[in-house]
Amino acid sequence: MDEWSLVYDGFDPSQERLREALCTLGNGYFATRGAAPENAGDDVHYPGTYLAGGFNRLETEIAGRTVENEDLVNMPNWLVLRFRPAQGRWFDTATDGLLEYRQELDMRNGVLVRHLRFADDEGRRTRVTQRRFVHMDNMHLAGLQTTFVAENWSGELQVHSGLDGRVVNAGVERYRQLNGQHLRVLEQSSVEGEAIYLRAHTVQSRLRVALAARTRVLEDVEAARELVEEDGYIAEELVVPVVEGQPVTIDKVVALFTSRDPAISEAGLASRTLIRRADGIDELLRSHVLAWERLWRRFDIELDSDERTRMILRLHVFHLLQTVSMNTVHLDVGVPARGLHGEAYRGHIFWDEMFIFPVLNLRLPVVTKALLEYRRRRMGEALWAAQQAGYEGAMYPWQSGSDGREESQQLHLNPRSGRWLPDNSHLQKHVNLAVAYNIWHYYQVTGDHDFLRFRGGDMYIQVARFLASLTSYSHAYDRYEICGVMGPDEYHDAYPDADEPGLCNNSYTNVMTVWVLERAVEIFRVLAPYQRAELAEAVELRADELDHWEDITRKMRIVFHDGVISQFEDYAQLAEFDWDAYRARYGDIQRLDRILEAEGDSTNRYKLSKQADVLMLFYLLSVSELSELLAKLGYAFDEHVMQRTIDYYQARTSHGSTLSNVVQSWVLAKSDRARSWHFFKQALESDISDVQGGTTAEGIHLGAMAGSVDLLQRCYAGLETRDDVLWFDPVLPKEAGRVAFNLHFRGHHLRVVLSASDLQISSALTSAPPMQLGFRGTVTDLHPGSDVSFALD
Amino acid sequence: MDEWSLVYDGFDPSQERLREALCTLGNGYFATRGAAPENAGDDVHYPGTYLAGGFNRLETEIAGRTVENEDLVNMPNWLVLRFRPAQGRWFDTATDGLLEYRQELDMRNGVLVRHLRFADDEGRRTRVTQRRFVHMDNMHLAGLQTTFVAENWSGELQVHSGLDGRVVNAGVERYRQLNGQHLRVLEQSSVEGEAIYLRAHTVQSRLRVALAARTRVLEDVEAARELVEEDGYIAEELVVPVVEGQPVTIDKVVALFTSRDPAISEAGLASRTLIRRADGIDELLRSHVLAWERLWRRFDIELDSDERTRMILRLHVFHLLQTVSMNTVHLDVGVPARGLHGEAYRGHIFWDEMFIFPVLNLRLPVVTKALLEYRRRRMGEALWAAQQAGYEGAMYPWQSGSDGREESQQLHLNPRSGRWLPDNSHLQKHVNLAVAYNIWHYYQVTGDHDFLRFRGGDMYIQVARFLASLTSYSHAYDRYEICGVMGPDEYHDAYPDADEPGLCNNSYTNVMTVWVLERAVEIFRVLAPYQRAELAEAVELRADELDHWEDITRKMRIVFHDGVISQFEDYAQLAEFDWDAYRARYGDIQRLDRILEAEGDSTNRYKLSKQADVLMLFYLLSVSELSELLAKLGYAFDEHVMQRTIDYYQARTSHGSTLSNVVQSWVLAKSDRARSWHFFKQALESDISDVQGGTTAEGIHLGAMAGSVDLLQRCYAGLETRDDVLWFDPVLPKEAGRVAFNLHFRGHHLRVVLSASDLQISSALTSAPPMQLGFRGTVTDLHPGSDVSFALD
Repeated sequence: MDEWSLVYDGFDPSQERLREALCTLGNGYFATRGAAPENAGDDVHYPGTYLAGGFNRLETEIAGRTVENEDLVNMPNWLVLRFRPAQGRWFDTATDGLLEYRQELDMRNGVLVRHLRFADDEGRRTRVTQRRFVHMDNMHLAGLQTTFVAENWSGELQVHSGLDGRVVNAGVERYRQLNGQHLRVLEQSSVEGEAIYLRAHTVQSRLRVALAARTRVLEDVEAARELVEEDGYIAEELVVPVVEGQPVTIDKVVALFTSRDPAISEAGLASRTLIRRADGIDELLRSHVLAWERLWRRFDIELDSDERTRMILRLHVFHLLQTVSMNTVHLDVGVPARGLHGEAYRGHIFWDEMFIFPVLNLRLPVVTKALLEYRRRRMGEALWAAQQAGYEGAMYPWQSGSDGREESQQLHLNPRSGRWLPDNSHLQKHVNLAVAYNIWHYYQVTGDHDFLRFRGGDMYIQVARFLASLTSYSHAYDRYEICGVMGPDEYHDAYPDADEPGLCNNSYTNVMTVWVLERAVEIFRVLAPYQRAELAEAVELRADELDHWEDITRKMRIVFHDGVISQFEDYAQLAEFDWDAYRARYGDIQRLDRILEAEGDSTNRYKLSKQADVLMLFYLLSVSELSELLAKLGYAFDEHVMQRTIDYYQARTSHGSTLSNVVQSWVLAKSDRARSWHFFKQALESDISDVQGGTTAEGIHLGAMAGSVDLLQRCYAGLETRDDVLWFDPVLPKEAGRVAFNLHFRGHHLRVVLSASDLQISSALTSAPPMQLGFRGTVTDLHPGSDVSFALD
Repeated sequence: MDEWSLVYDGFDPSQERLREALCTLGNGYFATRGAAPENAGDDVHYPGTYLAGGFNRLETEIAGRTVENEDLVNMPNWLVLRFRPAQGRWFDTATDGLLEYRQELDMRNGVLVRHLRFADDEGRRTRVTQRRFVHMDNMHLAGLQTTFVAENWSGELQVHSGLDGRVVNAGVERYRQLNGQHLRVLEQSSVEGEAIYLRAHTVQSRLRVALAARTRVLEDVEAARELVEEDGYIAEELVVPVVEGQPVTIDKVVALFTSRDPAISEAGLASRTLIRRADGIDELLRSHVLAWERLWRRFDIELDSDERTRMILRLHVFHLLQTVSMNTVHLDVGVPARGLHGEAYRGHIFWDEMFIFPVLNLRLPVVTKALLEYRRRRMGEALWAAQQAGYEGAMYPWQSGSDGREESQQLHLNPRSGRWLPDNSHLQKHVNLAVAYNIWHYYQVTGDHDFLRFRGGDMYIQVARFLASLTSYSHAYDRYEICGVMGPDEYHDAYPDADEPGLCNNSYTNVMTVWVLERAVEIFRVLAPYQRAELAEAVELRADELDHWEDITRKMRIVFHDGVISQFEDYAQLAEFDWDAYRARYGDIQRLDRILEAEGDSTNRYKLSKQADVLMLFYLLSVSELSELLAKLGYAFDEHVMQRTIDYYQARTSHGSTLSNVVQSWVLAKSDRARSWHFFKQALESDISDVQGGTTAEGIHLGAMAGSVDLLQRCYAGLETRDDVLWFDPVLPKEAGRVAFNLHFRGHHLRVVLSASDLQISSALTSAPPMQLGFRGTVTDLHPGSDVSFALD
C-alpha cells in the first residue's frame, strides 16, 4: 500500500465481493466492478453495472398497466477474458493452481492492475499482468491489457475474449427472489475480423445497449482466431504461439453505447464505428491518465497524516469521481446512494446529494448544476405527487426512480424475525430540504443568476411551497407545526402504539423548513425586479404567499426538553434504553431496529437513534446561523445548548447509518478535536473495512465517502458559503498536520493551506472580480493574483 | 391580417402545401404542419415533422455494413380529426361543400385557428371552429380543440379521432424515389376508455416514439365511443348528439415521447401517464400562451413601419422560436436549415447557425450555448474527418447528419437537363468558420469563461488548427494560401476545364481564417494562466503553433483585381456574363447553374455569383475590423474599396440564395439606405411569398428569416459585440420609423429605442457589474438601473 494505491495481496474468495466493489472502475457513464475476468463462467454476473431506466421490487399499476420499472440494470459483461496453455483447463483464479496474486487499484491513474502466476496440471507456469481502465475522457471506451509470460514452457496459449449478454441482476442476496432478468440480447456478430459485437435491450425500459470489443495481439505474431457463439454470448478464441520467457500482450478494447446517448445515429452502429476507430491501449491510457490528472488537480487533498488516512481519503474522492464526473454533465443521472458500484437500493436516488454537493460545488460546479437539472427535469412528477397527496408545490420522493416517481419500499424484511413489515420511509419528506439546500448552495458558490432565473428558481420555490403546505397553524401554541413526517433517523417512524405512522415537529425538519423559507424570500430579493416578476409569474405566486412564509419563519414550533433540542414532539416521554444490557446481550447493536422488532418491541418506544437527526442541524448550519434562526423564532440557543444537545444524543445513538460517523465527527470538532478525529477515522473505515459487515459488497456508501472528504474542508477548515462570502474558521485536529487543497468560488481559483499555526489562501490570476473572504467574523476583499494569511491561535 | 396574424381566407388547394409550411406549429421538440386534419386520408402524410436519428439519400458503408441513416423522420400523425353529420360522407376540405374557410396563425399566442362552414349532400350546414397548438412549456403536449355548431339540423355528429403511424417521408417531390418508409408501428391500443395509444420505432436509428391521444367531449353529453383499428392506425369514433344552434366542443390532447427523452422510464409508459394527468385544453392554452408571452417579451421588435412588415418580422421570429427554443436547451439538436417545417435537406445541419446566433445570443444565450454543445458533442467525428482527409484539428462537415458525419450529396440532379452531376459542396469547409465565429460571439455576448474553458475552447482551437492546416506556404509570394475549397457561392466549385474541383484563395475563406486565428490567440489571452495551460494540454498545443498562426495572420494571401477584392484567385480571368441576353431568353434566371449546365456551359466560366461571398465579409465584420485585419496583412482597404467591391458584385449576382437579399440589404445600409430597405423587404417576402417558387412548401428558410430580424438590430442599429464592448452605430432607413427592442449583454437587460433623431439605451436594475457601451468610437460605462441617449445626425 502507498498513499495512491489500494493493494490486496493474495486471492481470498471470502473477500472477493467486497474487493470487487472497492476496485470498481467507472467514469460516471458506466462502471465495471473489480471482478476477476477469467472467472466469467460464474453463476453471478455483475462486472458491468450501469444506471438505466428502472426496476422495482413491487410491480406497479401505472396508466392501467402493470409495469416493472427498471432503474438499475447490469450491462453485458465485457470483461470476459479466459486463458489456458495449450489444451489445458481454462484458468480459474478461485480454484486453480494460483502461485501468486496481487491486485492494486492505482487511483492516481485510474487503473486496476493485477499480477498473478499460476501452474497448470502439467506444471506449466505462466505469469500474467493485467491493466484495466474505464476511460475518463471518452466515456464510451474501456480497456483490458493482459501480458502473459510462459515461465517454463513454449507452445500455444489459448485466449477466450467474450461479450456476455446473459447477465442478470443478482448482486444483492435479498433481491434474488425478484426478477433479475432485465436484458434481452437482440443481435450478436463478428465485426471486421478482429472485433465482436452484441446488442441488447432492457426488458421494460427498452433502453438499447450495444457493445463492440476488439481483441488484438500486440506483438507481431500470427494468432489463429475462431468465433464462439451461444445464445446471448459471443467470443473470439485466439491461439497465440508463445516462447518461454517472452511476453505476449493481448489488448481488449470495448466501446459501449446506449440509445440514450446524444450525437449518435444508432447505438449499435456507434459502437461498431468507434471500435474501428479507437486508438490502441497505450494511447488510450495516456489520455485516460491525463483526464485523471486534471481531476486530481482539483480534488486532491494533501494532509500530513498517516499514509492510510491519505490513501482512504483518495479512495473516497476516487469513487465519488467515478460516479459523478465531467461525463455525467451531459447525462440525465442523479447521485445513486451506492455509487455505480453495486445493486443495493436498485439505483434509486435518495438525499445523498446533500453530502456530495459541498465537495463538488467548490471544484466542479458544472457537475452539481447538472445534478440539479436532474431534479429539475423531474419537477413535473414532484408537482403531481404533491397534488395527489393533498399538498402544494413540488414533493420530491424519498426514493426516486428513473422518471422521478416514488420508489420507497412499502414493506421490508427483518431477517432476524423473518417478518415483512410496513415501511414508512416515504414519510421522509426531508429529502426536499436537501433539494432546496443544494440549489441555494450551488448559487452561493457560483453566483449563477441565470440558473436561479430559468431552472433553479421555480424548483426552489415549488419545494418551499410544498414545505409551507406541510405546516399547520396551531391556535393553542400560536405556532406552526409539521406532523405526519419522519426525520432522517429511521428508528422513529411513529409514536409508540399509534395507529398512524409519522411524527410531529421533528426538529430537523422544522428548523430546516424555516431555513428554506427564509432563503425563498431571499431568492426574490437577489433577483432583479423584472426577473422576480417572471419567477412569480412562472410559479403563480399568490399575493400573500411570501408574507405567509415569513410568518412561518417567525412562528415555527421547535420542541426542547431537558435543556436540549428534542428530536421531535414528546420525545421526552419515551423510555430510556438499556444500552449496556443490549450491548452485553447482542454485541453488535448497529441494527437495534431488527433486534427489538424480533423481540416484539420497537425502537419507537425509546430515546435512541440510528443517527441523531437533531445533530444534522449543526452539520448543515453554523452556530451563528442557527442561533439567528432560532432567535427569530423566539427560542434561546447558544453554544452551551448545542453542546448539551450533542452530548445528550451522543449517548443515545447506535450509529446504524454510515453517515452517522461523519455527523458525529463534525459536531465534536469544536469541543473535542481528539474525539472528532476518532470519528473521522471511523468514517474513513466505513467501506474499506466494510464496518456494516457485508453492505459494501453491494455498493459503496457514497454519501459517507464524500462526507469524510467534506469534514476536512467544511468542518476542520471551518469553511462556510453564506451571504456571498466564503468564510473560514478552522478547528483542525493536530493529528491532521498540514492540510492543503484547491477550491473554486465565484470565478476564483483558490489554494488553501491550513496548519496548526496559520491559514493561507491565495487566488490565482484570473479576470474574476474581487471576492469576499471572511475569517472569524471579519470580511475582506480578495483580488485575483493575491494571497492572504491568518494566524491561528 | 393584423400585425400579429397571418391570415388566409378561402381554401386554395394549389397553395395548401405552402400554407401548411407557413402555418407550422412547433416547440423545438416537435412540430406539426398546418394541415387540414380532416383530410388525413390523403396519400401524403406529413403533419408531424420531427428531427430524429438520420436518413440518407445514398446508402453508406459504415463499419462494414450498409446503413441508411435517418436524420429526419416524420412522426405519427396525431392531427387526424374527421367529422360528419349522421351517416353522411366524412367531410373533406378539399372536395366537399365548403361554404366558408378562414385560417389564422395567431403568433402572439402560438395558436392556429380555423373557421369553416360546410353543407353536406342533404343540405345540413355545420360551422366548425378549430384551435390548435403545440405546447411551448410542456414540450410533450399538443392540443386540437374543435367546436361544432349544427346550423340547421339536429341529430348525431360523428367524430373520428386517430393516431396514424403509417406516415412516410414524402414531402419533397424529388426525394420520392428514395425509401420514405422510416416508421414501424410496434403496438397500438386503447387507454382507459378515453384515450388511444400508438408506439413505433424508426427503422434504422431505432428511435422509439410513443403517442397517446385523449379525446373528450367538453359538454356534458353522452357520446358513444368505438375503437377503429387498422395496421399501424388507431382511432376512436364518437357519436355526439347535437342540437341545432348549440355548440359542441371536442378536445383532443396528445402526449408524445421518444426514447431519447430524459426523465422517463420508457416512452410508451411516459405518454400514457402524461395523457392521464394532462390538464384540459383551456388550462393548457393558458400556460402555453404564458410561455409565448415570455418569449415575445424578449424577442418582439417594435417598428413604425407598415403592418405587413411588422407582421412578417413577427412571423420570422415566430418560426425561429418554434425551431429553437427553451425546449431545445436540453435536447441534442442543431439548427435545421428548413426549420422543423418540411423535409428538404433531410434534416441536415448546415451553417445556418451563423445567421441565427445574433438574434438568439442577445436574448437567450442559454439556447445558443446548447447549439454550440450540439457541435461540441460531434467534435470527435470532426477530428476523425480531418484526420482522414489529411488535415489537423476538427473539420466539421458542410452537411452534418445525426452523429456529425458528412452528409453532403455526392451527386445532384439538374431537372432541366435530366443529368445527375457530381456535387462538390463538401468542399465548403467554410462551415468551420461559422462554428468558430459563433463560439467567439457567444463568449463576447455572455463573458462565459467556463464555457470557453471546458467546452468551447478546445472546440475553437481544434477548428482553428484545422483551418491553419488548410493553408500552404508559397515561397513565390511569401504568403499563405488556401486551395481546393469552395466559398459560400455555389456557382463556383472549380476552375473552368479543371480536372480537380476546388478554388484557390477564396477571399471569404482566407479573410475569415485570419479572423479565426486571431481570435484563437486571443482566447489564450483571455483565459487565466492555469486555464490556458489546461487548454493547451487538452488540445496538445505544439510549442510553435500559436506563432505559426500569428504568422498566417500577417501573411495570408488575399487577391484583388480592378480595385476590388477578388472572389478567388484568377477570378479576374473569368468571362463576363451576358445578363441581359439571359434575362431576355429565360425570364427567371435565379438558377443560372441549371440553365447553363443544360446548355452544356457552366457557371464556373463566368464572373457571376449565386450569392457574392466576398460581400459576406462586410456582413460579418465591421469596416474598421476588416481594415485592421487587411492592414496587418499589408493590404490597403477602406470604405471606397468596400463600396467598389459592393457595386462590382451587385452587378454580377443572380440572388439564387435566400440569404442573398439579407446580405445585399446589409452591405447597402451605409451607402444607400433606400436600396437597403428595398432588399430588406425582399428578404421579408422570401418565404411568405415563396419567391423561389415551391421551396418554402418543403420547409421555411430559417437562416434568411433570422437574418431579416438581425438586419434591424445589427445592421440598422449598427450593433456590434467586440472587445468586450457593445457597440452601436445606427444607419436606420427612414422607412423603419422608430425601432425598439430588448437585449441581454453580459448580465444587463437592455431596452434599445432607435429613431431618426436619437438612440436611447436603458439597463434594467440588476446586480450585474457595469458594462461597456460603445457609440461611434467612444466607450462609456453603463450601470444597471441607468440609461443613456445619443443624438443621431
